[in-house]
Parts: sequence; C-alpha cells; structure tokens
Amino acid sequence: MIKNTLFLRALKGETVDRPPVWMMRQAGRYLPEFIALREKYDFFTRCQTPELASEITVQPIRRYGMDAAILFSDILVIPQAMNIEVEMKPDFGPYLPNPVRDQKGVDAVIVPDVDEALGYVMDAIKMTKDKLEDEVPLIGFAGSPWTILCYVVQGQGSKNFDLVKKFCFTEPAAAHQLLQKITDTTIAYLKAKVAAGVDALQVFDSWGGMLSPADYQEFSWTYINQIIEALKDDAPVIVFGKGCWFALGDMAKSNAAALGVDWTCSPKTARELTGGQITLQGNFDPSRLLSPPAEIKRLVHEMIREFGKDRYIVNLGHGILPYINLDHAKAFIDAVKEYES
Amino acid sequence: MIKNTLFLRALKGETVDRPPVWMMRQAGRYLPEFIALREKYDFFTRCQTPELASEITVQPIRRYGMDAAILFSDILVIPQAMNIEVEMKPDFGPYLPNPVRDQKGVDAVIVPDVDEALGYVMDAIKMTKDKLEDEVPLIGFAGSPWTILCYVVQGQGSKNFDLVKKFCFTEPAAAHQLLQKITDTTIAYLKAKVAAGVDALQVFDSWGGMLSPADYQEFSWTYINQIIEALKDDAPVIVFGKGCWFALGDMAKSNAAALGVDWTCSPKTARELTGGQITLQGNFDPSRLLSPPAEIKRLVHEMIREFGKDRYIVNLGHGILPYINLDHAKAFIDAVKEYES
Repeated sequence: MIKNTLFLRALKGETVDRPPVWMMRQAGRYLPEFIALREKYDFFTRCQTPELASEITVQPIRRYGMDAAILFSDILVIPQAMNIEVEMKPDFGPYLPNPVRDQKGVDAVIVPDVDEALGYVMDAIKMTKDKLEDEVPLIGFAGSPWTILCYVVQGQGSKNFDLVKKFCFTEPAAAHQLLQKITDTTIAYLKAKVAAGVDALQVFDSWGGMLSPADYQEFSWTYINQIIEALKDDAPVIVFGKGCWFALGDMAKSNAAALGVDWTCSPKTARELTGGQITLQGNFDPSRLLSPPAEIKRLVHEMIREFGKDRYIVNLGHGILPYINLDHAKAFIDAVKEYES
Repeated sequence: MIKNTLFLRALKGETVDRPPVWMMRQAGRYLPEFIALREKYDFFTRCQTPELASEITVQPIRRYGMDAAILFSDILVIPQAMNIEVEMKPDFGPYLPNPVRDQKGVDAVIVPDVDEALGYVMDAIKMTKDKLEDEVPLIGFAGSPWTILCYVVQGQGSKNFDLVKKFCFTEPAAAHQLLQKITDTTIAYLKAKVAAGVDALQVFDSWGGMLSPADYQEFSWTYINQIIEALKDDAPVIVFGKGCWFALGDMAKSNAAALGVDWTCSPKTARELTGGQITLQGNFDPSRLLSPPAEIKRLVHEMIREFGKDRYIVNLGHGILPYINLDHAKAFIDAVKEYES
C-alpha cells in the first residue's frame, strides 16, 4: 500500500491535515540532475528508455518530496504510436513533418496496439513503481484529443492553431474521425497505464483555451468526457484544461475526480464555477516562482486559504519554467508542508 | 456631423435598428490594396506618413462600409516616442534591441511632448477625417500600459512574458514607475488624438490575460483606469483586454463606454459578468472567418441574438487573420447589415 495517501485522499474528497502538492513538469529542466541526463540522451531516448524515464520521474521526489510523482513522458508519444512522425527540435519544440490535413491523411492514421507500440511506457511505469517503493502515488498522463489534434494538423506549436481550426471548420467529418481515432488510442493507452501500475491519471488539454465555448464542447470536451467515462472505474481522472475556465461548470458535472485550474481563475471563482464539491488542482502562476522565496511562501499560504485545504491539490497553474531557482521551487513545496490551518 | 451614427449611439447605449460593426485590424494584410502599399513602404514609414496611414485607414471602409474606421497605427509608437528603440522585423514582429530591465533603465525613459514626438499621428488623423467626409466615426487607439511594458521589458513577443513578470515581481517599485511614465504618455497622446479629431478611443490590453486577477489589478487595471478617468470627458473609451474575462466585472463598474470581449467568453457569460448594462464589443473567433460564408452569416446572426442588438458592437474577438478570403470578410460585415431582429 502507498504510504503517503494525501494525494489520493484529496482526489476522493476526504478531509486532510494539509493539501497534497506536486508541480506540473516537476521532472524537468530546472533540476541539474535532469540536465545532466539531457546532455547525454535526446528527448525521445529519455522517453523510450525505461531506466531513464523512471530515473527522471523520481528525481524531483528525492530532492523535494512532493506528494505525487508523474511519469516522465510526452503527450506526443500518442501520434507517434499512430504512425505519425514526430520530431522534437531543440529551441523549437515539437515538429511533425507530415501533418494530417485532409480525409486521405485521416484514413492513413492507424489506431495501434498500445502494448506493442507503447510497451516502453508500461515498462517505465513498472520500473518507476519499484523505485518509488510505495512512498508516493504515481500519475500517468495523456494529452486531450483536441490538443493532440492541434499538433497533428498544425505540425508544430502555434499562436492560434489556425490550420487546425480551418480543418475542423471546413472538414468537420474528417476532423471528428481523427479525434475519435486519437480518443480510442488514448483510452487504450491509459487503461494499459493503469494495468501497469499508475495510481491516477491526468488529461492535459493545453490548447482547449483556443476554442470558443461552443467549439470546445464539440471538438474537445466530447472526447475528454469519453476518456473519463472509459477510465473512471480504473483510476481517478484529473482534467486540466489551460484557459478552459468557461468549461469548468460542465467539467464539474462529469465523472472526473478533479479539475486543474490555471492562474487566471481565482480560487473563489474556480470554486463558484465548479459548484464547490469537486476537488480542484492548481493554480500558482509559474512566473510567480520568480518572486523572492518569502513572498512565494506567503502567496502559497494565501492560495491554500482561498481554495480551502480540503478537496484541493496544490500545484502550479501550468508547467514549471525551465530556469526556476532550486530554492524557489523548494519554497513552493515547503510552504505547503508547513501549512497549518 | 457624422452621418452614420450607429457606432456612437451603441457606445451611448441608445436603441438601434441593428448593431454597428467593425473589425479589429480591419486596415490590414487581408486586403490586396493594403498589400500593394506594404510592398512599397516599410512598417514605420506607413505609420509615420500621414498620406499612407490615412489611405490605409479608409481602404476597408471603401471596400466594405464598416460602421467605424480605426486609424492605422501601432501601439509601439508610444515606446518609440519615449526614446526606446523599436524595430518591426518581417516574419518576427516587434523587436526592441535595448529592453528596459532595471531602475537605471527606467530612469532613462522620458515622457515626451506628444505633439512633437507623435505629431505625425495627429496629421494622419486630420487627413483621415478629410477622407472620411463625415461618413463614419474614427477610432484612435493605444496599448494598455501593461501591454506596452511587456514589449519594453521582454524586448519581443513571448509565450509567457516571463522577463516582464520577473521585473514586476522582483522590482515592483521600478516597474510601477515605468508603468506610470507609459500611462502619462498615453494619456497625453490620447488627448491629442481627440483634439486632432478622433471620435472614440480604444485601449488594447493584448497581454493582460497573462496575469492572475490580483496581479492584473496591480499591474494593468490600475493604469487603464487612470486612462479612462483622464479621457472620459473627451471621448468614449472602449477597453479590450484579451483573455481578461476575470476583470470584466471591475471594468463594467468603471467609466469605460464599452468593453471588448474575446471569443472564449460566451455572450451570455459576458453579459452576466458585466451586469447587463454596459455596451459590449466582440467576439467572433477570428479563425471562424475560415468557415464557409453561409456558416459565417449563421454564426454572426446567432451571436447578435445572444448579445442582443442594443448596447452591442459587432466585432471579432481579436484581429482579423492575415490570409482571410475577401468574400469571408464580406460575409461577416454583410451578415450584420442584413440582420433583422
């Protein structure tokens, strides 16, 4: 049994002495021990080598003792497994040389056998569970189908993902077919992850906030909700939609165990929009870790008071920035551990 | 007197037969007549030559007959006038080679005599008013002090404007001094614009949505409100904060004449957040102009019904995309003109 149960209890809505804490991208570039590995191995080697992925996953836990680990991986392993070429270009980000932009392209996309195509992820989970020795729970994650579609159609990051929207607005049937293929793959993938040992799941909708509420419903939420419904009996599912404040009300009525919130939504507004019952996770502005440590601690305590200590998981409102000072990250984690209501 | 009074009446909250319509960046790259001028003259030449700026301003009015013109210019003429070098790099955007990042830099920034430093804008306004022959009102604009600060400190566009936030969070006194200098310059600039003949003003807070509600209050809204208070008796002031849904409630209590809304906020939510009395402007997803024209018209009519025809100005939720088909832009404008309640 897992020793530190704070995170899983918060997901169930149980009363806790203090809220649990972890940080999105906690296994990442602000850690010197991560940078040491990055200098030796390229991005997909790190993802695809269970020894490396598991090591990177436990690095932040060893250093700071967060209340949950999250498997080091990338949302783009899904299109890769669907036979879509994905490159990770240094100083540029993801690049997909053959984006899918028409019906013919959609027809060519496969729904893979995930154990075969993504077996390396399951091996990394098993190895990570061994290394964690049941100290803290392990989170597995996937991108939302809309967010994956964004990369698959645009072919790279974008200010507005206009080519994706053009595809959705002019060839909606083809777009929905592709979204369904991504959803089916993601469901099988997350089920395999749970079977391999993860204790909770998070779906990242990084680009949902690019859509109007009506388009979000049609092109993103429908598919996220399929994932929640398929996984709800396997593991608690956290949904984080960056910029998706407008959808929090619908999300709160779903079977998601918790909802991520970004920093543009105040704790009070987030509680109001979600009806006050569901567990919320967030929402410290990642740039606020640039503040002096004493100020970070003050702001974290204020945030906990505003969300309330129960039904709450302390986190950032997006991934930690690459160059955050180690002492500032420590101040964030320590502030939660020192919290007394 | 101005013949087409729809826009000014909507700003006053008067009852109209149909809402007025204009498009953010309507004087821009989707127009072949604009591209023809762009091929001959570089960006700041176009801004600084009254003949060119006025010509570009009236181009979309001639083609589509919007209910308001907006002076062709750029928000970065303000830092330029404050002795901060600004370049506009093709395929890159604004680039400020000497960003301001410390107290010494702030001390060196001047508050200019706007008639001297920005006289070319006032000349462009007078020339545009002549060309418009009182057919439609003319809007003058400025960036919000926070948005100008973003460029002045970061030195270029950014996904998160982390260097600006670092400056605000670690040297708040210096940041506030610089924000005040920008605000003072902007107030003098907008007063001169009104004296030169513009009929309404819009403040663009393009990057306000990067801030938490508390930080927005401190680093953006305070200064926008100073501008509103200084200009409210000179001309109606429209405030458009992209991604600033969380501040709409406070904005509605100010002396702004109208509030811009982006497409992530539904008309119903926008009305609820603003109390239902203030004029709203927006909020068609610019990417929705990629939809077929018949679909654009259907969506525009739906949007007008949802906002209501009164206290409403039809617009996009952000600037028009550069490659929008002329017929699609026409469908957007025509849909409003054809609207029957």
